[in-house]
Amino acid sequence: MTPDRWTVLKAGDGCVICGDAHLEENPFGYLVVELEHSFVRLAKNQYMRGWTTVTLKRHANELWELSDEELAGFWREVAHVGRALDLVYQPAKLNYGVFGNLCPHLHCHLIPRTYADDPTKPLNMNEQEVWLSPPEYAAAIGALRRALER
Amino acid sequence: MTPDRWTVLKAGDGCVICGDAHLEENPFGYLVVELEHSFVRLAKNQYMRGWTTVTLKRHANELWELSDEELAGFWREVAHVGRALDLVYQPAKLNYGVFGNLCPHLHCHLIPRTYADDPTKPLNMNEQEVWLSPPEYAAAIGALRRALER
Repeated sequence: MTPDRWTVLKAGDGCVICGDAHLEENPFGYLVVELEHSFVRLAKNQYMRGWTTVTLKRHANELWELSDEELAGFWREVAHVGRALDLVYQPAKLNYGVFGNLCPHLHCHLIPRTYADDPTKPLNMNEQEVWLSPPEYAAAIGALRRALER
Repeated sequence: MTPDRWTVLKAGDGCVICGDAHLEENPFGYLVVELEHSFVRLAKNQYMRGWTTVTLKRHANELWELSDEELAGFWREVAHVGRALDLVYQPAKLNYGVFGNLCPHLHCHLIPRTYADDPTKPLNMNEQEVWLSPPEYAAAIGALRRALER
């Protein structure tokens, strides 16, 4: 990635996430729900069971680009999704990561960590690839939607 | 980590971070500044240059345990520190991680990623250990404090 190319992406020009975060299905995953500030998606790769993203609707790259109201609203939605994941997966701990090293459009990864995980190991959602069957994806999405209503 | 031991830590009983997040120096790093909701610390391991943490003052484990006001205040402070790190280190992207797999007390890691980093590599602040000299730590802390005032 050159600084020039990255500057174009940061400006939102040709941003992949702007183009596909709202779709029922995209290469990354499935839409779970649309919230006020964000789209919630379940990752197709469920190696780390429950891996979900919360993506800001509008294009922004870093937290300080948001207004106070947007920042508060985005994190309220992340917290709400986190609580729902906790109800569904009952993890030892939830991990939250805002990286954006490949596409800077602001999104937060939420990953349940289990007691079987090594807590000293860095988070790597793509260490393995685990694909579910269509009914299994539908069940995971349904469970998360129901938990978001609780 | 057994579920029983983890439940005790989540309750804040014997929480290491409650005990040392405010100290000038602790085994992890140095205090940069105290904000309304959080303590800001520079990590001693500066393999990833600029690695800084923002730790909630009171004991909580997950984002949904916070009131709306606390949640907004905490992330406003994370964003403020992020902007300061951007001014000092001018990274390609800032990474933000709330993990807490070893100690659940809510804290956010802020890590500048450079153009030299491989964006496909998972974040691992402890992949190597890089210790600075005392004047180098003082310079890094001073630069961050000045940027927080800008």
